Amino acid sequence: MAMMINLEGYKGVAGTVKEAIEQVVLANRILANEGVLDAFGHVSVRHPKNPNTFLQSRSLGPELVTKDDILEIDLDGKVVTKTDMKPYGERIIHAAVFKARPDVNAVFHGHPHSVIPFTCAGVPIRPVVHFGCMFYDGINLYDDYDVSSGMLIATPEEGERVARVLGNKRALLMRGHGCVVVGESTASMVMGAIYLRDNAAIQFQAMQMGQPKYLSYEEGRQASLIMGSALALERAWTYWAGRAKKVMPDLR
Amino acid sequence: MAMMINLEGYKGVAGTVKEAIEQVVLANRILANEGVLDAFGHVSVRHPKNPNTFLQSRSLGPELVTKDDILEIDLDGKVVTKTDMKPYGERIIHAAVFKARPDVNAVFHGHPHSVIPFTCAGVPIRPVVHFGCMFYDGINLYDDYDVSSGMLIATPEEGERVARVLGNKRALLMRGHGCVVVGESTASMVMGAIYLRDNAAIQFQAMQMGQPKYLSYEEGRQASLIMGSALALERAWTYWAGRAKKVMPDLR
Amino acid sequence: MAMMINLEGYKGVAGTVKEAIEQVVLANRILANEGVLDAFGHVSVRHPKNPNTFLQSRSLGPELVTKDDILEIDLDGKVVTKTDMKPYGERIIHAAVFKARPDVNAVFHGHPHSVIPFTCAGVPIRPVVHFGCMFYDGINLYDDYDVSSGMLIATPEEGERVARVLGNKRALLMRGHGCVVVGESTASMVMGAIYLRDNAAIQFQAMQMGQPKYLSYEEGRQASLIMGSALALERAWTYWAGRAKKVMPDLR
Amino acid sequence: MAMMINLEGYKGVAGTVKEAIEQVVLANRILANEGVLDAFGHVSVRHPKNPNTFLQSRSLGPELVTKDDILEIDLDGKVVTKTDMKPYGERIIHAAVFKARPDVNAVFHGHPHSVIPFTCAGVPIRPVVHFGCMFYDGINLYDDYDVSSGMLIATPEEGERVARVLGNKRALLMRGHGCVVVGESTASMVMGAIYLRDNAAIQFQAMQMGQPKYLSYEEGRQASLIMGSALALERAWTYWAGRAKKVMPDLR
Repeated sequence: MAMMINLEGYKGVAGTVKEAIEQVVLANRILANEGVLDAFGHVSVRHPKNPNTFLQSRSLGPELVTKDDILEIDLDGKVVTKTDMKPYGERIIHAAVFKARPDVNAVFHGHPHSVIPFTCAGVPIRPVVHFGCMFYDGINLYDDYDVSSGMLIATPEEGERVARVLGNKRALLMRGHGCVVVGESTASMVMGAIYLRDNAAIQFQAMQMGQPKYLSYEEGRQASLIMGSALALERAWTYWAGRAKKVMPDLR
Repeated sequence: MAMMINLEGYKGVAGTVKEAIEQVVLANRILANEGVLDAFGHVSVRHPKNPNTFLQSRSLGPELVTKDDILEIDLDGKVVTKTDMKPYGERIIHAAVFKARPDVNAVFHGHPHSVIPFTCAGVPIRPVVHFGCMFYDGINLYDDYDVSSGMLIATPEEGERVARVLGNKRALLMRGHGCVVVGESTASMVMGAIYLRDNAAIQFQAMQMGQPKYLSYEEGRQASLIMGSALALERAWTYWAGRAKKVMPDLR
Repeated sequence: MAMMINLEGYKGVAGTVKEAIEQVVLANRILANEGVLDAFGHVSVRHPKNPNTFLQSRSLGPELVTKDDILEIDLDGKVVTKTDMKPYGERIIHAAVFKARPDVNAVFHGHPHSVIPFTCAGVPIRPVVHFGCMFYDGINLYDDYDVSSGMLIATPEEGERVARVLGNKRALLMRGHGCVVVGESTASMVMGAIYLRDNAAIQFQAMQMGQPKYLSYEEGRQASLIMGSALALERAWTYWAGRAKKVMPDLR
Repeated sequence: MAMMINLEGYKGVAGTVKEAIEQVVLANRILANEGVLDAFGHVSVRHPKNPNTFLQSRSLGPELVTKDDILEIDLDGKVVTKTDMKPYGERIIHAAVFKARPDVNAVFHGHPHSVIPFTCAGVPIRPVVHFGCMFYDGINLYDDYDVSSGMLIATPEEGERVARVLGNKRALLMRGHGCVVVGESTASMVMGAIYLRDNAAIQFQAMQMGQPKYLSYEEGRQASLIMGSALALERAWTYWAGRAKKVMPDLR
């Protein structure tokens, strides 16, 4: 049955809880449909009324997430919603990032295949194409795992370390695991997740062919102003939402 | 609801405005469906009655374009249609190419992933397979960006530079950004965009394996006469339109 | 509307003209659905009652072929069917191969992307995996084009050269163009086209990683006896036909 | 028509024959839908009441398997079900593994493309990403074919050799052929087959870029405890089953 989610009306940072929940559902569906998320990985959106909590699905494959699956979680990772639904173990990453980065309103953690080689082969991801510009000021690498957690981020202490290595950047690589992408809005987080994946795939091919000429710092900075504009975000969001709707009848 | 677009009747250069608008819609949909265009990138067709304007969608992901989204734009990039719909920022590329190239009736600008490594790794795209023949006389590389525009082509001056580097060729690579492909007709522009993408992907693999034997200039020239024939263009166009129709019910 | 084609009843070499026509339609659809054929490329089946003619679609993208599009063509490439439908220009390849190879009842010509690098990079395709076994006795390379035909095989003389280089093998590479695959039956031709494509893709990756250990001649010969058995051909044909039917309602 | 298979209720090791048959059907469909199985390859589940037999489809492409196609087979490969349906020739692999490994309740044999280069290029598959952790204690390589069987495992003697080289590991590579993956449950076997394929694809890219830092033995061991937990298996199984259901109406 249709969920009556507003697919067209992209509004940047959510104004109401209802909007924020719709954004969590759509971001999950879009990233599943575009092949960036699979059985694992997750997104979250900061609560629009209470900056000390965020909204995220219960432990569920992103392609399946509906409005009824969204939990409210605080910045220590404690589930605030009264429910016995189980949260994601790695909600810790989201909690720690929202705590450390007041400028961030949406967080992605996933394992796009093209990104993973860059986490373990000693090669940084750098903008090689215009739509990778948003990573113009660099991406750090996390490799300080608590081995007893099996390379998952499960404790507040490790969450804090992850947030510290992320620093003030838009993305973080995690060795042999995946990445984190953050945004000022849900749409910019979704855009970052998709284009980090695409820039990595293209950079791989360019590196096989020779020494690529990357975007300069200034090219990246200027380009990212345009990519982050409301016009560009709305065009991309409308496109991705439209594609998800086509193959996910319950979104219509 | 069905748009009642004539999918079968390929007619080369459009004779009427209605036909030209249908071609703009179909070219958008075909190139989206074949994975050549995504959220960004765009196509245009010269106005069949007024060579000093062209037809192009408002700022919208190509997969979503309908007849109601098409604007008429002049060769300085000014929107002629009375409307408050927003045009693409990079309509400037199209305007400048239509101005510089009276032989061109359709223009593509996009960012196919397989093409981008060739824009930044110092390796030219050359025909490595029959269907890449249309690029037999070479493809130039644009790398003279106005950095303050964030690597987008936003001013008439930079549009003119782009058109100048394109020269009399069928395609242009843009460093760290994408490409331009032109055609005498909508179908030849669509064919060029698809086969530039495919030739690049195959050339990449051939180069990984050794030193490919490319098509000679004369092989490419002769082959391009056949690929550009009405018979070949109609066969390919009918095939691509049929595929788009299958997954886009509003086209039926 | 449904074409009432018998999808399940694989019968090896067609016994009746009706069966042979159904096999031509299905082979086109299967190879389009599996991504081996696109706008161009074609298949043919020898006429079950008259070994001096064969059955092939009119000039049409393979995904669109129906029973009403099938022409009867003789071994000089002359269309026998009374019709004004246009045949494929490269029917010449099929005619020449059927003339030179009485053991062959079905012919494929196409341009699978993974195969093309092997046609121009000086590296032969060799069986690197069990399902590539059918090419155990080698694949020759054609590179003797009549340049004035634009690398297409358009004259009986060049058709004869192509057939001569094919020799008694199951496949032929054509430099910068594509390949020919033949079979004793429609199903073995389809299987050969799909697995030549797949073996090439896998061999490419294996060669990037080191010096692959290929199937020995005897391994390939023994394996090809099993792959060519009625049981294996029927299993694969039923699978491919079932997949095509799922996405092509008019086949049901 | 719908088969009335319980898609949601993942229950680990099947308790009843009905559940085990449903798991065989779903595992086939899931692995076909995820592109791990194609025309060939097969899965099996140990009989929940009789550990000396297992359940497996008759010789059929995995995408087409229904409840009516499931045979009961003993550990010598003899079909126990009274039927004239033909079993897979390579049921021998399954029989031999179930005999040698009482801890195993589900077996996969297939030919994922990304895995095959590792079987013949002298490079072992190693965990390069978190979800490849389940192979932390190594994967052996089988290359002791009885050539007269055409590289297929057709005799009990060769089945025994295969099981011996598998040893106590979770997976086995077979040179120029494919792989075997085993699990304590149907879900862990399916997860292993998918992530062996994905780890191989990512490892290939990482190796092209440099010398990857693999998961350490202890990282892999700890991570595999979490990946093998009921929570993770249920999340992944529900996701894969949901995806299969979307495109296979007869599963709904």
